[in-house]
Amino acid sequence: MTGSAAYASLQETFRRGALVGDALGILGWDQATIMPEGSADGRAEQIATLSVMRHELVVNPEVSDGIARAKQDFATQDTGDWDRGNLREMERAYALAAALPGDLVEAAARANAVCELQWRGARAENDYASLLPTLREVLNLVRQTADARAEALSLAPYDALLEEYEAGTRTDRLDPLFDRLASFLPEFLPQVLERQDSQPTPVRPEGPFAIADQRALAAELMQALGFDFDRGRLDISHHPFCGGATGDVRITTRYNEDDFTESLMGVLHETGHALYEGGLPSDWQFQPVGNALGMAVHESQSLLIEMQVSRSRPFLNYALPRMQSAFTGTGGAWDVDNIYRLYTRVEPGFIRVDADEVTYPLHVILRYRLERAMLSGDLDLADLPGAWNDAMGDLLGITPPDDRLGCLQDVHWPAGSFGYFPTYTLGAMAAAQFYRAARRDMPDLEANIATGNLAPLVSWLRTHVHGQGSCHTADELLSRATGEPLNPEIFLEHLKARYLGNS
Amino acid sequence: MTGSAAYASLQETFRRGALVGDALGILGWDQATIMPEGSADGRAEQIATLSVMRHELVVNPEVSDGIARAKQDFATQDTGDWDRGNLREMERAYALAAALPGDLVEAAARANAVCELQWRGARAENDYASLLPTLREVLNLVRQTADARAEALSLAPYDALLEEYEAGTRTDRLDPLFDRLASFLPEFLPQVLERQDSQPTPVRPEGPFAIADQRALAAELMQALGFDFDRGRLDISHHPFCGGATGDVRITTRYNEDDFTESLMGVLHETGHALYEGGLPSDWQFQPVGNALGMAVHESQSLLIEMQVSRSRPFLNYALPRMQSAFTGTGGAWDVDNIYRLYTRVEPGFIRVDADEVTYPLHVILRYRLERAMLSGDLDLADLPGAWNDAMGDLLGITPPDDRLGCLQDVHWPAGSFGYFPTYTLGAMAAAQFYRAARRDMPDLEANIATGNLAPLVSWLRTHVHGQGSCHTADELLSRATGEPLNPEIFLEHLKARYLGNS
Repeated sequence: MTGSAAYASLQETFRRGALVGDALGILGWDQATIMPEGSADGRAEQIATLSVMRHELVVNPEVSDGIARAKQDFATQDTGDWDRGNLREMERAYALAAALPGDLVEAAARANAVCELQWRGARAENDYASLLPTLREVLNLVRQTADARAEALSLAPYDALLEEYEAGTRTDRLDPLFDRLASFLPEFLPQVLERQDSQPTPVRPEGPFAIADQRALAAELMQALGFDFDRGRLDISHHPFCGGATGDVRITTRYNEDDFTESLMGVLHETGHALYEGGLPSDWQFQPVGNALGMAVHESQSLLIEMQVSRSRPFLNYALPRMQSAFTGTGGAWDVDNIYRLYTRVEPGFIRVDADEVTYPLHVILRYRLERAMLSGDLDLADLPGAWNDAMGDLLGITPPDDRLGCLQDVHWPAGSFGYFPTYTLGAMAAAQFYRAARRDMPDLEANIATGNLAPLVSWLRTHVHGQGSCHTADELLSRATGEPLNPEIFLEHLKARYLGNS
Repeated sequence: MTGSAAYASLQETFRRGALVGDALGILGWDQATIMPEGSADGRAEQIATLSVMRHELVVNPEVSDGIARAKQDFATQDTGDWDRGNLREMERAYALAAALPGDLVEAAARANAVCELQWRGARAENDYASLLPTLREVLNLVRQTADARAEALSLAPYDALLEEYEAGTRTDRLDPLFDRLASFLPEFLPQVLERQDSQPTPVRPEGPFAIADQRALAAELMQALGFDFDRGRLDISHHPFCGGATGDVRITTRYNEDDFTESLMGVLHETGHALYEGGLPSDWQFQPVGNALGMAVHESQSLLIEMQVSRSRPFLNYALPRMQSAFTGTGGAWDVDNIYRLYTRVEPGFIRVDADEVTYPLHVILRYRLERAMLSGDLDLADLPGAWNDAMGDLLGITPPDDRLGCLQDVHWPAGSFGYFPTYTLGAMAAAQFYRAARRDMPDLEANIATGNLAPLVSWLRTHVHGQGSCHTADELLSRATGEPLNPEIFLEHLKARYLGNS
């Protein structure tokens, strides 16, 4: 406890804001999973209203005055890291919010909710043209948001968008990282494909795989990882995500009855996100410092579980008998070597969420380039499908046959999320770095994983990542857990070991 | 459009309040249907926070000043009924809200949400003692609410609670109505039972009835009544209800695999509520005058569909073949006379929601008496189970074997709803009155119902009830639709015709 009345009052305000955010989380989850389609307009109004009310809570002279007074109080007090971190996060939230007029927040929330719903139909019908007017409105409001924040925070507009998802991240930090990948991968990928061609082609187990069986298997592995179904759910949505509210973490997937492998890894990915949310410091529930740190660290947790762990031989040794039992699978397709080759198969493809971890960064680089061009006005939305297809040709050597497999595949832009995609690749890098540190700290980690004992891994993550909330910056968190700030070479070493090594 | 700037600003404020209310509707629905149990505390905090924020929206000097100015403006303008009704409802909402301090609203919302969840477990385990401490807290806050409103509105405390659910209803109006029933029913009931004993005992169709089949039949009949599944849902909950949000009307039921008849009538009952919500005037969406009028009229719509229509011979003529087809039912139990006798069977029983319409008012009178005694302090909560059982003996001649079939059966008191039960019986009376008027206006109404053409009935309700929102008072609405204010004799005539007549 600190002795600052100003800070205590701020805590009350931000607590309220967090609970409105939780309500928005449930409304968003409902919209994406079970809401009747005809209710979309009403939902958009509810979301817009709560969004602007949350905005008004923070953008309030009492908050800015309170922050100033609390900083003075803290200067003369022996305040701990958590309270200092909390005040820092309050100041950041205030700065991000105060840059935007309330009517812009409300208009953006409404437009994003409407466009996200339209996107479902447009994607299903491969009809980009039908989405274009609404998407223009979304981009228009994203631009206004970027400009307003850029001016208030003295940042470039795209950096001002990045700041919301990942504090302190700028294009001048991303560019060298992405350049490193863009120079590494084109040389690396052919080597991977060549080695892969020298090995047996993996055989896909033959379905159909009943959705109920897939769900039961997914739930079993989620529970093995510590997912608490008494404080969370697994459901179906068009686009897999992890959402819900504090203490009510809800992940989604989509099932393909011909192929269980897609959904299963998708569920494990979202479980990584869910473990982070569920493991946040309960002492700081509803306070800014109790939040997840940012989207890059969030994605590091999903990719650590999915890419680093679940596609590894130790995990597959444990999981394979469970897969076989779920689907009564027998025969060569269920050989662990085959399943491992299947789950580490590298193949340039159209769909980002189905991409292997070698080609995935190229999907991100494509979006990073295109969204910057859209934001600056260099790329008109009418030209997006063509630009997308050209970039796919350049980066991955393939051309989508339609927009469903092209620029309509992701919900992010229709939902107003520009500046989000780069965090996926930052997360992939951080995941490799965290996992290497966990193995270093626990030499028997993978032996435990191979027997289904996932508790040591989850415990390490709780201690070093989840339970830290937003107490430290991302680089501090990485340094404390792994000994150094983000180092992309660790990710590249992981790729080389897995795809060119002997494992 | 009116020329009042003050009124326009009030409309904005109340629109926002309505959308927060819609968000609360979805959170409440989620809590009652699919929320993981461990998430109850967080949900209670979300609900408490949104409730107090909605309260603060209304309880604001700008609102009271605005109402005063708008009234002046209206006095000199040619303002229509709807705007006048809207301003009247705003004033009523302000008066109800302003009587309560925000911390009481927040505390009550939180306590009700917590107690409602605990009630589920307590009921399942027949453990009233475990509920008692939380229920005491709920009643304590209900008392504070009643006292605060009583003082502000110059009403007796119980009348102040009634006012929230049914504007203008007072105990001195309820008492003669309930006295009339309490004198009529004890003479009437034995006559009904005697006549019933002279007829063949109805046979219950033999199950099991798969839940999926029950749901499909329910959905078919809902759709025949005009329920729009593109703007609504049917789900499962512990206690059936109609909830959700504007344009997103969600009803629930619970299924018994041994007996499809309970759930089916329950669904039709909730469909009556849902038709009301779905038929409210869309021009006045999100405005107070666009709301349902009160809980008595709401209940009149559910009981009109369930009791007046769905348990009538014409409807059963239409529905029986659908029931048979849903469950491939054949044999004597599926004879229409048998099904009619089953659905109009009178039998004193323990459970209110399963009660026939003859004994139902006695369940309400019991609760009306007990909740007034609890509120005044004449009945201590520790003595509720005994008082309940005594009253059941007096009124219905039966004694519940346990509290699950006694005072734990209903969610209302744990959820903080005191003063609500009387609206069920007001609704039953109004339902009989509306339905008699509809038959008077459309002599071929029942012939249409017998062929499954429910459109004329629903259209009549849309015109005379649903589409009227809160434009008029309940007595005005009844008078305009039926020619007179609430007249309990029409309900008694209905009972006599159905249970002692030749139909």
